[in-house]
Amino acid sequence: MASYLITGASRGFGLALARQLASLPASDVSKVFATARGDTPALEELAKKSPGRVVVVKLDVTNEASIKQAAAEVETNLEGKGLDVLINNAGVCQYASDGVKSMDNLAESFTINVLGVHWVIRTFLPLLQKGTQKKVANISTTLGSITLSRSAHYLPAPAYKISKAAMNSLTVQYGIDCEKESFTFMALCPGWMKTDLGGGEMADLTAEEGAKASLDMIFKPGQELNGQFPKILVQGWEKAEGNNQYDGSNSAW
Amino acid sequence: MASYLITGASRGFGLALARQLASLPASDVSKVFATARGDTPALEELAKKSPGRVVVVKLDVTNEASIKQAAAEVETNLEGKGLDVLINNAGVCQYASDGVKSMDNLAESFTINVLGVHWVIRTFLPLLQKGTQKKVANISTTLGSITLSRSAHYLPAPAYKISKAAMNSLTVQYGIDCEKESFTFMALCPGWMKTDLGGGEMADLTAEEGAKASLDMIFKPGQELNGQFPKILVQGWEKAEGNNQYDGSNSAW
Repeated sequence: MASYLITGASRGFGLALARQLASLPASDVSKVFATARGDTPALEELAKKSPGRVVVVKLDVTNEASIKQAAAEVETNLEGKGLDVLINNAGVCQYASDGVKSMDNLAESFTINVLGVHWVIRTFLPLLQKGTQKKVANISTTLGSITLSRSAHYLPAPAYKISKAAMNSLTVQYGIDCEKESFTFMALCPGWMKTDLGGGEMADLTAEEGAKASLDMIFKPGQELNGQFPKILVQGWEKAEGNNQYDGSNSAW
Repeated sequence: MASYLITGASRGFGLALARQLASLPASDVSKVFATARGDTPALEELAKKSPGRVVVVKLDVTNEASIKQAAAEVETNLEGKGLDVLINNAGVCQYASDGVKSMDNLAESFTINVLGVHWVIRTFLPLLQKGTQKKVANISTTLGSITLSRSAHYLPAPAYKISKAAMNSLTVQYGIDCEKESFTFMALCPGWMKTDLGGGEMADLTAEEGAKASLDMIFKPGQELNGQFPKILVQGWEKAEGNNQYDGSNSAW
């Protein structure tokens, strides 16, 4: 019986996470707060199918007032209970066509992918402290690994890579600060998926496969993944190479 | 015969770099552009002692117009020659008294320590492309290492650590993009110094010791340090532990 909140749940990986969680027994998943900044027909449909269990909440991660409003709604809905798991999935992948010197979207990427995550965590922290699981998964990518930069050079998305490196650092700061309170903060790599943010049909995994494997990591008991940068584990992809290896191990930072 | 530009040269480590360079023979150092955003009596004094060789330039790394104005001044002064070495030293170390959850200065740290570095590099790149050395040293810190976060947890400066991790990633992006043009971009750790940004009298090294050892790394020929995260080499400190080890090796990211 755990409650979950997912940001950026209107489509792609975030929507797949919400669907996957809604498909699990109510004895495992008591509540799914699926948040998005705009109108979300797909989420509304999911909520209709799981009345009371899937709750759609408006939340714009770049707007602190919107985050506070969402937290107040969630708190009311939880009726005194805590929030158990927070999945910071909302994010943006921005490109620079002529390499890093042409990058003019770093501030925007940083606001959404780093400040937004910080603001959401900070605002929901009191509710998470009352929760039973105390888990926060910040959705990351091996493209944010500085060590692996060379193998990711083919993708001209420097603002994405740089902001995810910063988000990884943020994740570890929270992890070390909060581990005495039994928190687990992980920077989770869900793999290369066939989503709008990802690679369309060229990608390795469906959003559903990525969501299932990601939840397997989030469900792991204990604090072993606190302050870590885990990749998902997907059968058939354990022995692939570089950024396409989904063997459940931690990536280098 | 090489020309240097240093940002944040009004005091501390930046000023020590300018002084050190000015003390070297004109056959080695033809020109030192010492930049700062405000009035700088110490720099003016240094410029008076080395007329024509040390040039004080106003430059605010958070203001793109100011950076462009500075680049125009430097270009005029160089009379058709390129700029050989850029040292991005301007930066800020901001604290959060109650841990990362109380951090309210991440956007400001990011603007100065990451966006500012990006804007300066991007603006001076055409002049650097005309230079003979093509070296860019972004002043970093092992406190920005995600891998070493745990050993740096004693210092409540999450915005500094997170922004330096992002600057490290930015450095590697430039390094990989520009290496075919013979550039070397390094994220250089100058050690813990007795400066305002650093630790006052508790610190390991004087600004002069840090500056001398940093220039030793910058002077290294070749592109070996491109995309790397070198620590300085200081005799007597090679075998210290953790963040105080100055053995000239690369830090983990």
